[in-house]
Amino acid sequence: MLQEANAVTKDGLGLVVTKEFKFAEPPGELPLDCGEKLGPITVAYETYGELNREKSNAILVLHAFSGDAHAAGWHEGDSKPGWWDEMIGPGKAFDTDRYFVICSNVLGGCKGTTGPSSVDRATGKPYGIDFPLVTIPDMVQVQARLVDHLGIGRLLSVAGGSMGGQQVLEWLVSFPERVQSALVIATAAKHSPQQIAFNEVGREAIMSDPNWNNGQYYDGEQPVRGLSIARMVGHITYMSDASMAEKFGRRTGGNGHARPFGRGFEVEDYLHHKGLTFVDRFDANSYLYITRAIDDYDAGKGGTLAAAFKGLEARVFVISFKSDWLYPSYQSADIVRACKKAGVDVSYYDVSSTYGHDAFLLEVEEQSVLITSFLRKVTEEGEGI
Amino acid sequence: MLQEANAVTKDGLGLVVTKEFKFAEPPGELPLDCGEKLGPITVAYETYGELNREKSNAILVLHAFSGDAHAAGWHEGDSKPGWWDEMIGPGKAFDTDRYFVICSNVLGGCKGTTGPSSVDRATGKPYGIDFPLVTIPDMVQVQARLVDHLGIGRLLSVAGGSMGGQQVLEWLVSFPERVQSALVIATAAKHSPQQIAFNEVGREAIMSDPNWNNGQYYDGEQPVRGLSIARMVGHITYMSDASMAEKFGRRTGGNGHARPFGRGFEVEDYLHHKGLTFVDRFDANSYLYITRAIDDYDAGKGGTLAAAFKGLEARVFVISFKSDWLYPSYQSADIVRACKKAGVDVSYYDVSSTYGHDAFLLEVEEQSVLITSFLRKVTEEGEGI
Repeated sequence: MLQEANAVTKDGLGLVVTKEFKFAEPPGELPLDCGEKLGPITVAYETYGELNREKSNAILVLHAFSGDAHAAGWHEGDSKPGWWDEMIGPGKAFDTDRYFVICSNVLGGCKGTTGPSSVDRATGKPYGIDFPLVTIPDMVQVQARLVDHLGIGRLLSVAGGSMGGQQVLEWLVSFPERVQSALVIATAAKHSPQQIAFNEVGREAIMSDPNWNNGQYYDGEQPVRGLSIARMVGHITYMSDASMAEKFGRRTGGNGHARPFGRGFEVEDYLHHKGLTFVDRFDANSYLYITRAIDDYDAGKGGTLAAAFKGLEARVFVISFKSDWLYPSYQSADIVRACKKAGVDVSYYDVSSTYGHDAFLLEVEEQSVLITSFLRKVTEEGEGI
Repeated sequence: MLQEANAVTKDGLGLVVTKEFKFAEPPGELPLDCGEKLGPITVAYETYGELNREKSNAILVLHAFSGDAHAAGWHEGDSKPGWWDEMIGPGKAFDTDRYFVICSNVLGGCKGTTGPSSVDRATGKPYGIDFPLVTIPDMVQVQARLVDHLGIGRLLSVAGGSMGGQQVLEWLVSFPERVQSALVIATAAKHSPQQIAFNEVGREAIMSDPNWNNGQYYDGEQPVRGLSIARMVGHITYMSDASMAEKFGRRTGGNGHARPFGRGFEVEDYLHHKGLTFVDRFDANSYLYITRAIDDYDAGKGGTLAAAFKGLEARVFVISFKSDWLYPSYQSADIVRACKKAGVDVSYYDVSSTYGHDAFLLEVEEQSVLITSFLRKVTEEGEGI
């Protein structure tokens, strides 16, 4: 396995490690949107490339719902690299020969950053659903503390797709002066009822699993079936009608998934496999908290996005994908319209793809050209790096 | 309630009752697609209007997944009429002053026709998942026995939407000589992997509910939460992004659905309500069997639909709805193409609507005009009624 990894990484970042940053805001806790305070907070993060002397080449990459800090390179012994490895590395779109790339796991997550599976110092047990309700703005506040810690004032760019794109929007709203440019990919300024509805099915599946046990399952059986169902729904929405037809057609299943009757189809086996493997790498309570944060988020804060973007000096690039029906292109076009109305320098590209929402992870070639060119423009026309 | 019902029914069909037809094929059982035999079989059905002397004015209406034999008129004490009441009645599209309309509950159902909740004579207990695997062609065989029983040789028309539309296709394939015309609405000749995937999420939610108990729950607690989740998924797919946005927007919820944290949105309350009320009227095992039959169905029987339709003399009218993403218009267009290739007399209309798949139940006005005109043509150009 490691040999294979090493072979593949020859022209990539090679081995990387996840680091930890702990902070305790005086008087020891971070004030959250919900009014509660939380601390100390641990942030899991990775960095790739070198920060230049002027500290002007830092790009913050923000992960999607089930992503983590491990965006690129290889962890020792792993059989695959970070989730956006094809985009981040020497000579790639986020060129680590030029840029210093940072990625951290979100607040509320389960990949090293404080979340509902972390131990609550008050009880000595995992928080479970006593974890406070965290929001996309809270996640961004935590990221800002990490950027402070790394000694960076202004980011050359913030970039992310899906939930990561929501965080990009929130960086623009919360810290406009700290963002020189923004890559807003396959996202929405606020969720539609259809997007909320799919997430609610997932939440309900988890909470209906008796093993969920009102969020305290860390000592016992995990809510495996509920979380698996949630992930099955997710996977349908990440693909497209066309990409599913191409990948599975109506080939019959039967490999690896026992059924009480009927033979079933390959697509069913695939969903079960995806559901059950997800359970090994994700915490059910994080699923609840993070989807709630995504659903609740409104970049316009109840008003218009154009008003929220008023006076913004960052250069913005919005990318969507034609077959993405979970985050349809019209939601990206809405963001573009708001930018224009607010006088923000914005570009937009609607990429032809049959991959559905997954396209932001899979359409490497076209995105690479677009992002490379955008970042060049930003550095050349801006203060330079 | 009854007063209200009576007031509304003044110009409709008034009170109707569901009838029963029992049959026992010699030697007592119906051979099924799966190779097993089943019998005796009870069929719940309703009829509206009068069969003419020539028995040439009969229209068989076929219900969708969660429908039943009660297509029109009012049951004593009910607060709402049958599921297609706006389309069936005196002066309506399926004009009961002209036509004799029949609707029956499908085999495998839970509304009076033999299904997994029926008592197995061999054990004296409900079949549960010992019920044989039934198919769309099996359902149509049972309907044909009912039509025989009513003394009707050839049907003026067979009509149905969604799963009902699959049955219409199967009538054309299994009994081409018994069908003068066909109304194929919002359906597919075979399910795509995306359609199968959504159904599999529902099945998995039901079977993951500990109360499902391998299909034997009739004496105890029903798998309420699992079936409710299945229905929640269904409802998302029946609506459209646009119709959900219009109906719910991002209005916050909180009425009637308790949450462990967060306030949630009105769309979530709606889905929970729809899920929990569905449980009162539908059997979880029927959900499993019927969705399996829908997913397995292929009108072309593994070959092309055009080949299956070769020589067909029925006049066919295909209707789809532009915002229906569960049964997208291209699937209807595929049926039309197959008809043309087979030399079948086919018309097609893609109705503008924002209602999504639900449009076949909600777009009454436009469908009425289309269907009225189609049935007039069939009777005028055909043998007359």
